[in-house]
Amino acid sequence: MKLSAAQARSRFAASPVAVLGTADAVGVTHLVPVTFLLSDDLVYIAVDDKPKSSRDLRRLRNIAANPRVSLLAQHYEADWSRLWWARADGVARILPDPAAAPDAVLTGLVERYPWYRQNPPGGPVIEVTVTQWSGWAFSGASAEPPDAA
Amino acid sequence: MKLSAAQARSRFAASPVAVLGTADAVGVTHLVPVTFLLSDDLVYIAVDDKPKSSRDLRRLRNIAANPRVSLLAQHYEADWSRLWWARADGVARILPDPAAAPDAVLTGLVERYPWYRQNPPGGPVIEVTVTQWSGWAFSGASAEPPDAA
Repeated sequence: MKLSAAQARSRFAASPVAVLGTADAVGVTHLVPVTFLLSDDLVYIAVDDKPKSSRDLRRLRNIAANPRVSLLAQHYEADWSRLWWARADGVARILPDPAAAPDAVLTGLVERYPWYRQNPPGGPVIEVTVTQWSGWAFSGASAEPPDAA
Repeated sequence: MKLSAAQARSRFAASPVAVLGTADAVGVTHLVPVTFLLSDDLVYIAVDDKPKSSRDLRRLRNIAANPRVSLLAQHYEADWSRLWWARADGVARILPDPAAAPDAVLTGLVERYPWYRQNPPGGPVIEVTVTQWSGWAFSGASAEPPDAA
């Protein structure tokens, strides 16, 4: 069954990982897994600070050329009655470093991901303003297949 | 550490689910989870047969407009030393139904996914010719962060 926007947002928020999809100016899609913090309808994604490479990642180049992005969180298991996915479509912008984001963002990321406690991210931060939440969960009653939406 | 093409392909092949990223003609990205069968460097993705909707899915419209697609399989857990992802970038085409695919495709999908035994997919089949395999796995030795690639 299709999820409401609120249901999709709730499932997305509870997932520790999502896939970020960006596309360059000519529509070549690029996918990468990301950790994130959701605050209202803003998704924050940190990039680790490695001066030689962190500011030239393909996801950042794509967003600069084409800010329309999509994020997908999903759950898979062999029992398909438990499948679900939640998608956030939106518009991204790049903040130069965590100090350019609200104070709660770095704090929230560090709380959410223990790895960041000893390795706080210092690179650019991707901020996605979500314009549409959508999602799907298996409905045993209808046996609706997973590609329904 | 970056995975070799062979390592990335092997991890991808073993995953039961991937995220398919397509983009329309103007570069708006669309993400959806998919099950698949990998045969050499061809990825087959079935669509269930629902005459009213299965031939008008956004992923199919996007591929018709822009055949460059990306597929990502990944593993997440709280212990980041076990993270990995594998990506298949390629070019997609749409086959009208499973009969248009090699015989082994439907057989392989049904073997791989028990749900298909009672619900064999009858809709279009997406065939992706993979042109590049890439991937990453956490390397404890270097403590390389997850966004290195």
